[in-house]
Amino acid sequence: MAGRNHLYIPGPTNSPHEVLSAMHLPMEDHRAPTFPLLLKPILEDLKKVFRTETGQAFVFPATGTAGWEIALTNTLSPGDKVLIYRFGQFSHLWMNMAQRLGLDVEMHEVQWGKGIPLDDMEARLKEDTAHEIKAVLATHNETATGVTSDISGVRKAMDAAKHPALLFVDGVSSIASLDYRMDEWGIDASISGSQKGFMLPAGLAILAFSQKALACLDSAKFPRCFLDLKDQMNSNKDGYTPYTPSTPMLHGLRASLDILLEEGMENVYARHHRLAEGTRRAVTAWGLKLCAQPGFESDTVSAIVVPEDKDARDVIAKAFNKYDISLGGGLSEVMGKVFRIGHIGDMNDVSMLGAIAGVEMALLDCGIDIVPGSGVAAAIEYYRATVTA
Amino acid sequence: MAGRNHLYIPGPTNSPHEVLSAMHLPMEDHRAPTFPLLLKPILEDLKKVFRTETGQAFVFPATGTAGWEIALTNTLSPGDKVLIYRFGQFSHLWMNMAQRLGLDVEMHEVQWGKGIPLDDMEARLKEDTAHEIKAVLATHNETATGVTSDISGVRKAMDAAKHPALLFVDGVSSIASLDYRMDEWGIDASISGSQKGFMLPAGLAILAFSQKALACLDSAKFPRCFLDLKDQMNSNKDGYTPYTPSTPMLHGLRASLDILLEEGMENVYARHHRLAEGTRRAVTAWGLKLCAQPGFESDTVSAIVVPEDKDARDVIAKAFNKYDISLGGGLSEVMGKVFRIGHIGDMNDVSMLGAIAGVEMALLDCGIDIVPGSGVAAAIEYYRATVTA
Amino acid sequence: MAGRNHLYIPGPTNSPHEVLSAMHLPMEDHRAPTFPLLLKPILEDLKKVFRTETGQAFVFPATGTAGWEIALTNTLSPGDKVLIYRFGQFSHLWMNMAQRLGLDVEMHEVQWGKGIPLDDMEARLKEDTAHEIKAVLATHNETATGVTSDISGVRKAMDAAKHPALLFVDGVSSIASLDYRMDEWGIDASISGSQKGFMLPAGLAILAFSQKALACLDSAKFPRCFLDLKDQMNSNKDGYTPYTPSTPMLHGLRASLDILLEEGMENVYARHHRLAEGTRRAVTAWGLKLCAQPGFESDTVSAIVVPEDKDARDVIAKAFNKYDISLGGGLSEVMGKVFRIGHIGDMNDVSMLGAIAGVEMALLDCGIDIVPGSGVAAAIEYYRATVTA
Amino acid sequence: MAGRNHLYIPGPTNSPHEVLSAMHLPMEDHRAPTFPLLLKPILEDLKKVFRTETGQAFVFPATGTAGWEIALTNTLSPGDKVLIYRFGQFSHLWMNMAQRLGLDVEMHEVQWGKGIPLDDMEARLKEDTAHEIKAVLATHNETATGVTSDISGVRKAMDAAKHPALLFVDGVSSIASLDYRMDEWGIDASISGSQKGFMLPAGLAILAFSQKALACLDSAKFPRCFLDLKDQMNSNKDGYTPYTPSTPMLHGLRASLDILLEEGMENVYARHHRLAEGTRRAVTAWGLKLCAQPGFESDTVSAIVVPEDKDARDVIAKAFNKYDISLGGGLSEVMGKVFRIGHIGDMNDVSMLGAIAGVEMALLDCGIDIVPGSGVAAAIEYYRATVTA
Repeated sequence: MAGRNHLYIPGPTNSPHEVLSAMHLPMEDHRAPTFPLLLKPILEDLKKVFRTETGQAFVFPATGTAGWEIALTNTLSPGDKVLIYRFGQFSHLWMNMAQRLGLDVEMHEVQWGKGIPLDDMEARLKEDTAHEIKAVLATHNETATGVTSDISGVRKAMDAAKHPALLFVDGVSSIASLDYRMDEWGIDASISGSQKGFMLPAGLAILAFSQKALACLDSAKFPRCFLDLKDQMNSNKDGYTPYTPSTPMLHGLRASLDILLEEGMENVYARHHRLAEGTRRAVTAWGLKLCAQPGFESDTVSAIVVPEDKDARDVIAKAFNKYDISLGGGLSEVMGKVFRIGHIGDMNDVSMLGAIAGVEMALLDCGIDIVPGSGVAAAIEYYRATVTA
Repeated sequence: MAGRNHLYIPGPTNSPHEVLSAMHLPMEDHRAPTFPLLLKPILEDLKKVFRTETGQAFVFPATGTAGWEIALTNTLSPGDKVLIYRFGQFSHLWMNMAQRLGLDVEMHEVQWGKGIPLDDMEARLKEDTAHEIKAVLATHNETATGVTSDISGVRKAMDAAKHPALLFVDGVSSIASLDYRMDEWGIDASISGSQKGFMLPAGLAILAFSQKALACLDSAKFPRCFLDLKDQMNSNKDGYTPYTPSTPMLHGLRASLDILLEEGMENVYARHHRLAEGTRRAVTAWGLKLCAQPGFESDTVSAIVVPEDKDARDVIAKAFNKYDISLGGGLSEVMGKVFRIGHIGDMNDVSMLGAIAGVEMALLDCGIDIVPGSGVAAAIEYYRATVTA
Repeated sequence: MAGRNHLYIPGPTNSPHEVLSAMHLPMEDHRAPTFPLLLKPILEDLKKVFRTETGQAFVFPATGTAGWEIALTNTLSPGDKVLIYRFGQFSHLWMNMAQRLGLDVEMHEVQWGKGIPLDDMEARLKEDTAHEIKAVLATHNETATGVTSDISGVRKAMDAAKHPALLFVDGVSSIASLDYRMDEWGIDASISGSQKGFMLPAGLAILAFSQKALACLDSAKFPRCFLDLKDQMNSNKDGYTPYTPSTPMLHGLRASLDILLEEGMENVYARHHRLAEGTRRAVTAWGLKLCAQPGFESDTVSAIVVPEDKDARDVIAKAFNKYDISLGGGLSEVMGKVFRIGHIGDMNDVSMLGAIAGVEMALLDCGIDIVPGSGVAAAIEYYRATVTA
Repeated sequence: MAGRNHLYIPGPTNSPHEVLSAMHLPMEDHRAPTFPLLLKPILEDLKKVFRTETGQAFVFPATGTAGWEIALTNTLSPGDKVLIYRFGQFSHLWMNMAQRLGLDVEMHEVQWGKGIPLDDMEARLKEDTAHEIKAVLATHNETATGVTSDISGVRKAMDAAKHPALLFVDGVSSIASLDYRMDEWGIDASISGSQKGFMLPAGLAILAFSQKALACLDSAKFPRCFLDLKDQMNSNKDGYTPYTPSTPMLHGLRASLDILLEEGMENVYARHHRLAEGTRRAVTAWGLKLCAQPGFESDTVSAIVVPEDKDARDVIAKAFNKYDISLGGGLSEVMGKVFRIGHIGDMNDVSMLGAIAGVEMALLDCGIDIVPGSGVAAAIEYYRATVTA
């Protein structure tokens, strides 16, 4: 039936048609002498997105979940202590992975809706005078709660504690969307995936490692092959890969990088902030609240709390079944309590207004008492006041 | 830059991804024995859209403008009298074509905003006792003013006058969208194009002719080759075409027909009506008026009149430049006076709400005094009350 | 079933994937202020392909057949005398069109397999001291017989006769493939289509007119609207079109022009010559003959004569049904006598060798006595000797 | 420049246009209630390709290399003994992975050009009365040497030895191309990837496990997360995935399965055999030899040995640089000694003849003394004699 699905989940995000068309091409010989002309510039340009000059970028034919594992298994060894703060489903999953891999995980619970508590972390790091903590695992943007942690602050806390631990950042739903500065913030592993800010289908783990992290490759004792970083490095240095890459995905990434870098990363961040802020104005106009506490609001996804007597799953189901809108659900602890609107990727004002208007219908259909049009009105005011084109 | 254009013109309309993908394929031999397996079912299925069992459908590698010319030059001869009512830019252009081709055009002016005046037409046809009028040219949906004429009423007027003239209907922006019944309404030539209700790019004139019209092919004295109907018939009967067709467009049309017929024509009409009515509710909420007078409102496009001290071109320019929304402009007499929102083709509730919200921004930016969110609120109420999914 | 069709007809030709991907994009507003940024450079760059600096290029949403009609009806009037030499199905069809349109057609028969007889033409033009002949219609490349006429020679004959007639050239299967020089050869109308050297689907008539031809627009008395050149000129001068264009086809043409101009027109000609010559070496090795007489061999299509006791349609049917190869058939007078291999468009050595090898199978299956591999061997020798990469 | 690349490597293979178009679509919510309607039938239909009714199929967003690792780490534990025969680069790499993962690898060298020595294996298994060998790792089709091992024979050897080891088969370049019968041959893990017989881009590890293998998941002690089979099972049972899948790849796989199953697996095998045999006839006609010893010839890839005084890399370079043909190179021990022609995936007779003819040019250019056309002639004879269409 005519009428497209409107995709407002925080990933996979909408793909620009230029990206999809760039991926639609015949297969190629990945061992041809021309292949490095594709791969090498991609790896260089990725550094501009990660904002690192000293680090090195990598692309694996896998997903962000694999990215987490790559960071852990290529630099650490079973039994190594890692510090992680859990404040949502994705920080939980990363922690869980670390445990399953046999790391010694020191996990601190944080209220879902807040990000990493910087003072707390600084204090904990100062206590660790023996430097037993080998790595800090920080979730930059917790997709489940719509919370952004202050990674610059994490670095400051580590510096204040003079702690030498590696800093690994899950930037799956932040990199290429939110302000992210690998070198400036002293990040040792930056982990992302193709299906968020890069606006591609899932299927690539996109990473960058600092020289400090790369120096750990030889000592890391986890068994690994498919996700081995040294194999990638050995092949990448000549412009090749250790096993067959997805050439369409690389062409798509090329197109994505062209779009991002032409817009300019600062503009990309500003666009995401503006789209998010309009959404937040709508939420306030509805009389609802974000899951994110003040100061932690994410510019890539808003998790919106429904009234206590309502189930957010109904909102999502009505949006999907009646209006062909895909919203993000609440995961784990916040299941049924929140629904999520992604404002990440190939979006602009009218995309967001469609989401907001559509959500108004679903909220009303669920008997949630909002003033029809109020969210749209609030977002309109904001977008009009801040539009630059 | 990321963020797509939002296309709300009344054509070309948005193409479903299934249609675009169906068109993306290697070239084919149009003289292969397999080609008729593509063409013949398309021509049969088109009859279900035109709603004719006795007529014959045709596809030319051209546009709706060519469709007008095909109807005139294959059935009439220079000097033949035709009757036409002008009530917008497209009825004007068709009339103008008839004049340029050397037909004897009897044109009646109708206020832009209204459709064919049925009583007037009936009276005029009754006067024509000598049956000098060979054809009535009726614009079903005047895209420029958002006006739909009552073709069933035209047929009744012709029958009441017992007039044998051919009835030619410009259904470019109505067929495959608005209620259209070729056999029931006694239409002799139905003219459409690919880029409206068929949701394809421009490039196909899509037509159907009654047996009565086809009986005129031999007597028609206009010189014609590319647009000759008999050449098409001679080739079509074996499943071929008289010159090279666009096979991708035919595959796209196949996909489009599959979508339309799966939804069912009655459902297609109902969907367009519902989307249009929501838009009209928004217009009313804004305190604005349609160009269309009551009873003539089109379900495929709304032409909205701006206040007298405003220029609708500013609304369109602001919508495009600031918010990447494409609206239809006012043409000819209504230039600067109206802007147009298409609600035709691959659209659904959220698509329309995006349009309405986006237009609100552009209206406000132009200093047009509307209540922000009011149009969206009115549309939301209507869509919620009428949604069936 | 897996295994693609191998398309070796002389049009539609194979489309490069870059062209197909460029066509796969959302619909656009053809009245947007950005549309001229697409159309204007295309019209300028087309002049580089037509090789005219003083002429003007046009693109109609139609086909090459329409192109013939555009040239005739926009510059001539009913009853005007035109001179045409018939030496194949396409020169026949153009002549037939001229007759049907009511022109006074002076047709000279030429043996199928030869091109325009220059001495004969010069003599005839010299006889026409009253200059009754208003236009010479010359088929540059007769697709049906694989014959290329000497257009430079036609110009010389006209000059030698000091004849002021317009020179119209059907370059549908030559432009963008064979050496073609509009200005140098004094051509007044150049007619092509999208589905040959431009490597696109059918759906665009691509033309160029000299200033001398354009000066005739006002005096031309044929009724015309869809194919009216002045309407195009009036819209094109601002970068727009008189009715809805196919934006995907324009994007495809943009991609095609980029490919052609990057290769360079002289290289494009040389490539076609080389591919054709290899095919001809194969034909000779098989002991078969071209339909084209020596000196008239086309570099875009070879029409190959089968032994008198064989039917070329069997060759074509076996090639298609057994090996999924699409070959061109013999048309009209040469039906059953020839089959055709296109070497036009997106082709290279291995493409041609596949065609030659495949044809060998079909020939053998039809009991035509050739030495298996002989054609391929001859082509290989030639390609190896002349490859430049 | 016009003229496409001709891809004859053994993977990635050529993708049918239906597969590429199926992958070109907007992103989707992988948590939508409609997602299982896509995934579940794929997993069911995959079993028809693996030819298992009792096993379970899996799809990971990774590659065949990951597939090897999935099999090893989900069923075995560090220190477990595995038996592997090395007879090419891919069996080498799998063995090497097993070593790196910390398995106790018992490797037997086999001459490159031969497959697994069944008698030898049977004898070895009989010796292992303590059943220390936990798994046999068998490479079905060694892509590097063009050798196919007899997996049915491996099963017979294991049965003859009454050995309970798991049987893991690398079918990356055999499954969906060569005769493969998981249930009948008692295979416990079948490992494939998307870019070979499935005719997709790389990016999916496609696997099937027997119930016997699945019973080992709980006891397997390798740390694993991204490649964990239980996580997949837990999500798959409801039609979902444990992390974001590539929906375009799943749609492509859907299209691929439709093509394969419509053709029928037996026909798929027969087609590959026929294409391969034609290639082998050409090799013989050239006076060259396969790397594969008699009885071990692969129907998906032929590795062809160049004369001792020549370097196969020159053949490959000339083919690529002069004629835009991509051939497979010799890897590791056979580098410079062989070049490879893939006859796997979306290929048919003319595809292969293009390859053979193109290779003839490259061989001659390298001064290798073959009779031009001889390979093509031999292949033509064979294809003509065996064509069924």
